[in-house]
Amino acid sequence: MAFDYVCDPAEIYRQSFATVEREAALDRLPEAMQPVATRLIHSCGMIDVIDDLAFSAGAAEVGRNALALGATVYCDVEMVRSGIISRLMPADNLLVCTLNDPGTPAHAKAIGNTRSAAAVDLWEPLDGSVCVIGNAPTALFRLMERILEGAGLPALVIGIPVGFVGAVESKQALAEFSEDLNFITVHGRRGGSAMASSVVNALAGGLG
Amino acid sequence: MAFDYVCDPAEIYRQSFATVEREAALDRLPEAMQPVATRLIHSCGMIDVIDDLAFSAGAAEVGRNALALGATVYCDVEMVRSGIISRLMPADNLLVCTLNDPGTPAHAKAIGNTRSAAAVDLWEPLDGSVCVIGNAPTALFRLMERILEGAGLPALVIGIPVGFVGAVESKQALAEFSEDLNFITVHGRRGGSAMASSVVNALAGGLG
Repeated sequence: MAFDYVCDPAEIYRQSFATVEREAALDRLPEAMQPVATRLIHSCGMIDVIDDLAFSAGAAEVGRNALALGATVYCDVEMVRSGIISRLMPADNLLVCTLNDPGTPAHAKAIGNTRSAAAVDLWEPLDGSVCVIGNAPTALFRLMERILEGAGLPALVIGIPVGFVGAVESKQALAEFSEDLNFITVHGRRGGSAMASSVVNALAGGLG
Repeated sequence: MAFDYVCDPAEIYRQSFATVEREAALDRLPEAMQPVATRLIHSCGMIDVIDDLAFSAGAAEVGRNALALGATVYCDVEMVRSGIISRLMPADNLLVCTLNDPGTPAHAKAIGNTRSAAAVDLWEPLDGSVCVIGNAPTALFRLMERILEGAGLPALVIGIPVGFVGAVESKQALAEFSEDLNFITVHGRRGGSAMASSVVNALAGGLG
């Protein structure tokens, strides 16, 4: 080979996680959150992303249990679904993305919202599910509206939309929403599908 | 609605791009690279990502022309393919990801490399294509090996793998590879599928 690089996938993971554990102050976090933080950092290459990590007490345990019991995982975009490692899922959990459902564009027009928000209205049942938002602030806002409307209570909301319009505000609203709602988020403008799906992977499979 | 937020997709894009243009020093870049930088920042929520943006002279023009002429777009992972906005593609370009091809795991074993690297061996023809790597440093290294082996010359390599093992090194190697190879990269540990696909979207459709 013309280049000298590590080719063994297990060794790449080992070295990656070792670097994260060496550089990040993971011990400031509850033990169950540490693999979440490790995979989150691994997904984006930024050690300091854990400075913006926020979560309800026990969120990691609740998410882990929900997945083990077969919770459906709703994803706001296909990129989130693609980022979830199926073989890690403990109960062959359904991974659902309704963004490209045939009825979603018309429903978006009907409710005067984005396609991402309209897609959230198709997440049924919400009760006990794991909802993962890695792209659209409007999807996260719409999800909170549905919970307020009595549509059900997810076991866990992983809300990590990205960007300049509504991301900061929707994540702040999630963190302040209710004591009854378990959440994991990354405050600020940073976020995205890779971060969001990495949290699911950590809850499903730890660092395995 | 319980929350006050922008629901109109066109207005969300407008405000997002306006924020990027206000905060980022885009005028330091050649004109053809400015929409690339705008969409790159938009994809990750980080203004300072343009400090790490690097490219060969004329890379944006070459990429734009290649797409207009119908170039195949090879993607290292499904997340990159999902992040490309099909309706922006000027020539109904093929979007190809060979990572989950049935033969890829056995080929990876045969060449003693990752599945991501093995998948690159299935990118045929390479000549004139647009190769997009948003995840695996090994895929970027393997692509450069294939070019050295005479497998063909892509029109453009968008090489933005992420992480702690090989990402920095593979992107450095890409930038130093050859005067004949057009590339766009983001140096350092940061990168990922969303950034990589945002570059394709910018070349295909500008900010439209």
